[in-house]
Amino acid sequence: MDTILIVGYIAGTLTTISFIPQVARAWKMKETRDLSLAMLVLFAVGVLLWTVYGFWVSSLPVIAANMITFLLILVLLFLKFRYK
Amino acid sequence: MDTILIVGYIAGTLTTISFIPQVARAWKMKETRDLSLAMLVLFAVGVLLWTVYGFWVSSLPVIAANMITFLLILVLLFLKFRYK
Repeated sequence: MDTILIVGYIAGTLTTISFIPQVARAWKMKETRDLSLAMLVLFAVGVLLWTVYGFWVSSLPVIAANMITFLLILVLLFLKFRYK
Repeated sequence: MDTILIVGYIAGTLTTISFIPQVARAWKMKETRDLSLAMLVLFAVGVLLWTVYGFWVSSLPVIAANMITFLLILVLLFLKFRYK
């Protein structure tokens, strides 16, 4: 595989999995006060549009990374409203 | 311009600017406790690699979006250590 494709896959994996420790922290601490609601909403709409883009250009990595990120952001939004 | 390109640009703009309200909140509230340090570090490395990827494939939108996001995450990391 091209080096640059590997860089792209690592980049996509990192920006996707980065929300896992954030979900874990909010879940465990039952605290989401310092998370910006505007950030979560803008990011959710953004990754949803990236998913649409991914389907349109038939890019499985783009679809997969953004769908997973979208689900993690949905969990954060749920926790934000539950523990505000 | 193609509809799908517009969708991509809107998506990139949203996921980039989403960190502005988060920086504003952390700055104003002087509180970053609920932000996961692991999330910030993984995301910072991820967007840095996306920037490398952008330079490699000569994609100005990828470079611009990820450099701006990287700077915003750096500010959040700084605030995380300042107001922990």
